[in-house]
Amino acid sequence: MRVDLNADLGESYGAWAMGADAELLPLITSANVACGFHAGDPQVIAQTVALAKRFGVRVGAHPGYPDRQGFGRRAMGLSPAEIRTDLLYQIGAVAAFCRAEGVPLHHVKPHGALYNRAAVDGGAAEAIAAAIWSFDPGLILYAPPGSQLQKAGEARGLTVWCEVFADRGYRADGTLVPRDQPGALIEDAAKAESQVLQMITEGTVTAVTGERVPVRAQTICLHGDGAHALAFARRLRERLTAAGLLG
Amino acid sequence: MRVDLNADLGESYGAWAMGADAELLPLITSANVACGFHAGDPQVIAQTVALAKRFGVRVGAHPGYPDRQGFGRRAMGLSPAEIRTDLLYQIGAVAAFCRAEGVPLHHVKPHGALYNRAAVDGGAAEAIAAAIWSFDPGLILYAPPGSQLQKAGEARGLTVWCEVFADRGYRADGTLVPRDQPGALIEDAAKAESQVLQMITEGTVTAVTGERVPVRAQTICLHGDGAHALAFARRLRERLTAAGLLG
Amino acid sequence: MRVDLNADLGESYGAWAMGADAELLPLITSANVACGFHAGDPQVIAQTVALAKRFGVRVGAHPGYPDRQGFGRRAMGLSPAEIRTDLLYQIGAVAAFCRAEGVPLHHVKPHGALYNRAAVDGGAAEAIAAAIWSFDPGLILYAPPGSQLQKAGEARGLTVWCEVFADRGYRADGTLVPRDQPGALIEDAAKAESQVLQMITEGTVTAVTGERVPVRAQTICLHGDGAHALAFARRLRERLTAAGLLG
Amino acid sequence: MRVDLNADLGESYGAWAMGADAELLPLITSANVACGFHAGDPQVIAQTVALAKRFGVRVGAHPGYPDRQGFGRRAMGLSPAEIRTDLLYQIGAVAAFCRAEGVPLHHVKPHGALYNRAAVDGGAAEAIAAAIWSFDPGLILYAPPGSQLQKAGEARGLTVWCEVFADRGYRADGTLVPRDQPGALIEDAAKAESQVLQMITEGTVTAVTGERVPVRAQTICLHGDGAHALAFARRLRERLTAAGLLG
Repeated sequence: MRVDLNADLGESYGAWAMGADAELLPLITSANVACGFHAGDPQVIAQTVALAKRFGVRVGAHPGYPDRQGFGRRAMGLSPAEIRTDLLYQIGAVAAFCRAEGVPLHHVKPHGALYNRAAVDGGAAEAIAAAIWSFDPGLILYAPPGSQLQKAGEARGLTVWCEVFADRGYRADGTLVPRDQPGALIEDAAKAESQVLQMITEGTVTAVTGERVPVRAQTICLHGDGAHALAFARRLRERLTAAGLLG
Repeated sequence: MRVDLNADLGESYGAWAMGADAELLPLITSANVACGFHAGDPQVIAQTVALAKRFGVRVGAHPGYPDRQGFGRRAMGLSPAEIRTDLLYQIGAVAAFCRAEGVPLHHVKPHGALYNRAAVDGGAAEAIAAAIWSFDPGLILYAPPGSQLQKAGEARGLTVWCEVFADRGYRADGTLVPRDQPGALIEDAAKAESQVLQMITEGTVTAVTGERVPVRAQTICLHGDGAHALAFARRLRERLTAAGLLG
Repeated sequence: MRVDLNADLGESYGAWAMGADAELLPLITSANVACGFHAGDPQVIAQTVALAKRFGVRVGAHPGYPDRQGFGRRAMGLSPAEIRTDLLYQIGAVAAFCRAEGVPLHHVKPHGALYNRAAVDGGAAEAIAAAIWSFDPGLILYAPPGSQLQKAGEARGLTVWCEVFADRGYRADGTLVPRDQPGALIEDAAKAESQVLQMITEGTVTAVTGERVPVRAQTICLHGDGAHALAFARRLRERLTAAGLLG
Repeated sequence: MRVDLNADLGESYGAWAMGADAELLPLITSANVACGFHAGDPQVIAQTVALAKRFGVRVGAHPGYPDRQGFGRRAMGLSPAEIRTDLLYQIGAVAAFCRAEGVPLHHVKPHGALYNRAAVDGGAAEAIAAAIWSFDPGLILYAPPGSQLQKAGEARGLTVWCEVFADRGYRADGTLVPRDQPGALIEDAAKAESQVLQMITEGTVTAVTGERVPVRAQTICLHGDGAHALAFARRLRERLTAAGLLG
């Protein structure tokens, strides 16, 4: 009954800075490092892995679609074979920087439109699991609870950590309320905190429709966009640390 | 007194085919696989590594400048730090496909304008050596004999294999005759063959100006462009095999 | 009652050659020039426009998704706003080479997955029409007969030329038989020729299910892949020329 | 005796924001819009041209090397032919957005490493001039005073506006003090202002070595990086406006 705190880091690119990596690193326990397809580049990856190492934060690969201009957020009709090889390529690239820094590669969390697709598309999910497994069966896959991605990872024999969100509303089937529907975002910080604690300690979430439904919460995704997000992340970390739940 | 035969493979990209990989693979003992920056892509790398494995050919990474349109043949003012991280990224990417196929990554040979620069630019050469060493000190570096790249590799403690050309003329200082000068290309197949055998068995090359100068020849670069090049490669391989020099 | 013969040209990229441009140019009356997103590059565009000018072939822009590795054949979730600006950019780029050569830009034909999407997606179709119209309302839009793209173009006041295929089967609703279904391809050259002549002279096509359905055929897409395709294109051109139908 | 104030705008890319476009637009009289090779993308170009139109600011194309990761600041061995076609492509792309907005394309200013090269490399300079001339001989070329680029533009018959910097030191030969040498930067705002006024009203600059040398100053490059730069730009504009020198 311990939980990981993850965040997407290393999203700068060339001359363009992005993200609050320096502020997030003291707060998280694992970093998802962009691999150069949707964000990041070799220089940025090198700096991010080195920084994560300095903070004792676990390093994961955060591969995405080959769509830098769209930040990997636009759907793309890659075949499962293309997903597999694009993933293997990106995982290998980030792993090289881990190797150079002497830190292990800990996990893989797909990004954006690919993550969303893998939640519901079994073929894409299996391609991701296959890429990870062929590189290193010991890598942990971060996936939405109850998703095709979780299933594909476990079918392959991978360890899967289910990822939840503190500030997003859930439906009775355990999936997120889509962003264009009421209840998608939890604006109230206290409520978000309670949701997280309930998820970890009870293994349930209260859906927007009132039902208490089971949810597996092993890692929580934190954001660094804006003072509000960072303040919330700080408070959540303190609360989890105090409760002995941070792992 | 044995010699390796290498060739650049995996230079197709997306819908664009390039090279004579299937014809070259039975002739060579090591393949330099393009890493996706100047040529190649994840699908092509996967196929190329799998094909090399089938033919029992050693797999190396063939990293280049991030200039696909220019095929890595245009000079680019990357800093040594950028060269180091661009190399590490590319080596890691190809290594991932080796890992998935269960074959070791054997060597690294820089491509095109980067190879030419590293022959004479100590800073670039050291950046390449540093990238390789930080990834795996057991990787072999292919470098021009007498080059800054050879020196930087050996200074780092890497094993360096000196690469020579069968069909290029050499100068008295052991460097290649530039392509725009007389004697740059050896058109006569018998002469090219003799040059190779002399390089391997005597450790010398006869310069275009007549001097017999020492040269270290551990790997020979073969080309697949055109029937002529393939026929020459076939004959050379037969000759080396017959002489017990192929290694 | 005259018909245009078009082909996709300028699909080479950097060091990678593609297509049979030199063979197709004497056969066609209009060229769709790749704009550098899914294929082509500035050097290739310059050469292709110059070549088209020499053969007296009309020049069109052939814009695609920003997905070079997938050759613009993979679906991509661009918003209509992104489609509009990506199109405007590509049309302007090719138009610059027309201007430098002193030839008019004649038409625009979207490529691959974008063309397929615009056939059925009104929002994408309108974005394409809007881009063309804002650049030059005199440009002709090539579109599948009966498609959303045709409708959007005509709603904007653009001239639309309906594009048909000699070697593809049609369904009773006037759309193409999908490639994975029987009757998708017409292998018999004589039958393909007859289909084209019927389309032009009668304005109908005989569906795979036997019905004779109306179809507007103003431009025919020719391919250059393989000796077979070129031989067919030659015969078709001769036949159309003899019948006084080539325009 | 009037002077133009220019700034590089539209340097955001995809999800990455860059620059102080909104702050600079009220201060400048011409905008150099990044064309999508080293910075910018079709969406950003569309927004930038629309914004410049709203502020009544003249729009120019700001083409660079095809090196997004290096922001066009790294040297690249493009041939003159490649420079010409890369420029034509970029100019055409930005011109399309001008056409869609109904504003004229006013000028072309090469970016970064290409600008620096064209200052001293006659072949590169002539390739740039040729590209501009072939697109529209009425476009104005921005170039360093006394440079190869100025010469090449004028040899082609282009109007050339010489660009100077308020905050950079000049040498006795009229060229900039390199950034790694003393006197490269003028930190004192009053001194920078005086330099500009002297350049415009007297046509001279006082070199770091004390000589008063002739300089042609028709456009001044302003920067938006930091509160300091914007404050200086504001003061300079006020001063020039008061003196009736802004044009």
